[in-house]
Amino acid sequence: MTLDAVLARIDETLPEALDRLIDLLRIPSISTDAAYAADCARAADWLVKDLQSLGFDARAAPTPGHPMVVGHGGTGKRHILFYGHYDVQPVDPLELWDHPPFDPEVQDTPKGRVIRARGASDDKGQLMTFLEACRAWKHVHGQLPGKLTIFLEGEEESSSPSLIPFLHENREELTASLALICDTGLYEDRVPAISTQLRGLAKSEFTIHAASRDLHSGAYGGLARNPLHVMAQLLADLHDAEGRVMVPGFYDDVDELPDTLRQQWQGLAFNHTTYLGDVGLSIPAGEVDRTPLEVLWSRPTAEVNGMWGGYTGAGFKTVLPAEAHAKVSFRLVSRQDPAKVLNAFRAWAEARIPADCRIVWHDGIAGSPASVMTISDPAFDAARAALTEEWGRPAVFVGEGGSIPIAGYFKTVLGMDAMLVGFAKDDDQIHSPNEKYDLSSFHHGIRSWARILARIA
Amino acid sequence: MTLDAVLARIDETLPEALDRLIDLLRIPSISTDAAYAADCARAADWLVKDLQSLGFDARAAPTPGHPMVVGHGGTGKRHILFYGHYDVQPVDPLELWDHPPFDPEVQDTPKGRVIRARGASDDKGQLMTFLEACRAWKHVHGQLPGKLTIFLEGEEESSSPSLIPFLHENREELTASLALICDTGLYEDRVPAISTQLRGLAKSEFTIHAASRDLHSGAYGGLARNPLHVMAQLLADLHDAEGRVMVPGFYDDVDELPDTLRQQWQGLAFNHTTYLGDVGLSIPAGEVDRTPLEVLWSRPTAEVNGMWGGYTGAGFKTVLPAEAHAKVSFRLVSRQDPAKVLNAFRAWAEARIPADCRIVWHDGIAGSPASVMTISDPAFDAARAALTEEWGRPAVFVGEGGSIPIAGYFKTVLGMDAMLVGFAKDDDQIHSPNEKYDLSSFHHGIRSWARILARIA
Repeated sequence: MTLDAVLARIDETLPEALDRLIDLLRIPSISTDAAYAADCARAADWLVKDLQSLGFDARAAPTPGHPMVVGHGGTGKRHILFYGHYDVQPVDPLELWDHPPFDPEVQDTPKGRVIRARGASDDKGQLMTFLEACRAWKHVHGQLPGKLTIFLEGEEESSSPSLIPFLHENREELTASLALICDTGLYEDRVPAISTQLRGLAKSEFTIHAASRDLHSGAYGGLARNPLHVMAQLLADLHDAEGRVMVPGFYDDVDELPDTLRQQWQGLAFNHTTYLGDVGLSIPAGEVDRTPLEVLWSRPTAEVNGMWGGYTGAGFKTVLPAEAHAKVSFRLVSRQDPAKVLNAFRAWAEARIPADCRIVWHDGIAGSPASVMTISDPAFDAARAALTEEWGRPAVFVGEGGSIPIAGYFKTVLGMDAMLVGFAKDDDQIHSPNEKYDLSSFHHGIRSWARILARIA
Repeated sequence: MTLDAVLARIDETLPEALDRLIDLLRIPSISTDAAYAADCARAADWLVKDLQSLGFDARAAPTPGHPMVVGHGGTGKRHILFYGHYDVQPVDPLELWDHPPFDPEVQDTPKGRVIRARGASDDKGQLMTFLEACRAWKHVHGQLPGKLTIFLEGEEESSSPSLIPFLHENREELTASLALICDTGLYEDRVPAISTQLRGLAKSEFTIHAASRDLHSGAYGGLARNPLHVMAQLLADLHDAEGRVMVPGFYDDVDELPDTLRQQWQGLAFNHTTYLGDVGLSIPAGEVDRTPLEVLWSRPTAEVNGMWGGYTGAGFKTVLPAEAHAKVSFRLVSRQDPAKVLNAFRAWAEARIPADCRIVWHDGIAGSPASVMTISDPAFDAARAALTEEWGRPAVFVGEGGSIPIAGYFKTVLGMDAMLVGFAKDDDQIHSPNEKYDLSSFHHGIRSWARILARIA
């Protein structure tokens, strides 16, 4: 069987694949820091050269920021786009790294062999799983596994400023029938998983103004409105005692979980005690009549991400401040519209504050809706079967509590669904010192893509 | 009449009195800044010399901080202590001063002539009204108006670290039958006033801890407890919808206002619309079934003076923080005990937070109780009559929303009641740039003390 030959080739050449990854990891492609712009360009060029060596027609396309790597190759009945990003997070605090972040090291740990470096897991190690699968395939078959477009971004860690314009400008070139995204992880660190729904996000920052200046709490305390009290009341009223969000209409466009997914999620036997226990908590918050996994994956939230006002320094100042501030974000699901949610929140908040206070909103009405993939596409079941074979455990469809904006943009700008498959582990310490990627994630990741591509491309 | 002769002498020598005040104001006796320690000592020496010129047996008594000025003189049936402070607030932001803060200037303003300098009102101008009254009295009578102790502090603006030990160590020397304190103002800028009750103060700073580290709101949002929500709920629950403080037992030791004071306060016709309107507010907060003046002077409060947590910088971070912080203070009245109030607050708060959160308290159980003067002492009515004569308006007994700790210490350490009489105006800009003292406050202040001393000493 030719797939077996591809898998064998992957196994045999793992050391070389690892060397290539280490080579890429040596390039400090930190996208947020202008000082590393040349390194970002260097990483893009490295990838273009690697893609060309695989037979792709590849280029580093300039943007106002860092270049996009785009490559086309292969033939087949279905056009598949693969997305990853070659930029990495900053490394500070550098003193917390046990080893220089851009001097990759293969280490043996109690949990197995790992590649330790910034970007090892997020996302260079993950994106290379796909390229290595293509390489082995090409070696065995003499051609790529299908009609493929490779699209690698260099600004994912710095809010992707060039992405949407680039998608618009290159719509035709980039629109495939399905996008594969490799930037997620295994479920509970062991179970191969396909993310089929991602929550969206809407953010709001605002100030409640009361008196025209800070007041002395002796001279005014009790009589003058304290905006910290107004803010506390407002934020407390955002949820009822059962954890429901109290903004009118908030749940209007929230769909119930389909029975098939509900059953499958029940089968995941998510252990919220462990999940919360790992971070020192024990009592689930949120809607009391929902399962913990629903709360995380398929229910919307309203969370205060920051609040501040009055005197916050050392010691005490008996001040009644003139203002109080908060940042509130909403995780969105199903068909919730960010603008509708934010407008409803604003109206709700403004109606609740005393008439001699006022709210100033510091941001526009914007956000990203949830992404819900069309899992009826046979590629999803095919990928599930492929992953099940590779990992020896039934692969699962999971949700993601967070947002992966690229999936939404592929849908809204290009009309293309995405399938998110990734091999990261919870302890990969992405965005933190001592980031690592398990060698098993890398190895089985490459093999997983070979199996998936054999079925869908 | 000899009082008339004293008053005439005051009128005639006002320019010289003003020169002396200006001389004292030139000394930058900023107590919080060690760089000005020598200036504080110089101000103390200046006052010692001035007291000696009036026949007082005076000295600058050393302390671990700045010296205390103590002077004794005169004879009489009643021993009266006078308290003021010679230290001043820092002057920054210096660029907001129209004139150097320690180069005093007499200016004509639309509201009358003023002395502009740091300390002009708080408290050098006020303390000099008493010394000038003594000076005129001495000139006319050849002796001081009674058995007097002058006690001038040099650390009032820096939390009086040496005060309580000094009172303890010099208890016998400093204990008189009544203390006069000149550090307050006219009621509504025109009505002579005697402060007969001051609210106390208890302070609490605490942190609510939830997760063991900051969490990503995508991965944990909804399921993990957000301590900002817990804090908002706690602070919102601190008051009910009618403005009452919900800590059990909070009102146990709060007395109703005596009928005599209630009637007198009603006569003050306090205009809360103007009072709040001056700072941009219109709706009284606090207990709905209490008059605004009660709320300010004779009712206790719970006020959040600072709260913070999560991401408070520019932009957005979708974090579920590990902790939330607050500073809460209580203005106390009647017989409320600071320790009892703080312990009740702690117990109340700890019982309300989720079982997997915890509160860490950052301060001890301390504070100052309210001061309620024994106005049955005939000195109070005598002073009221004297002030009424001088100002041509019925003098009033008022409360103070703030705390003046020295009054409490005189009571608790020395067992001595205090009568607070002062001539400052609301627009004196104490603690702010361009501090001033009205020449009319200075002039009538001196005359007021002459009249009061004629009646009580």
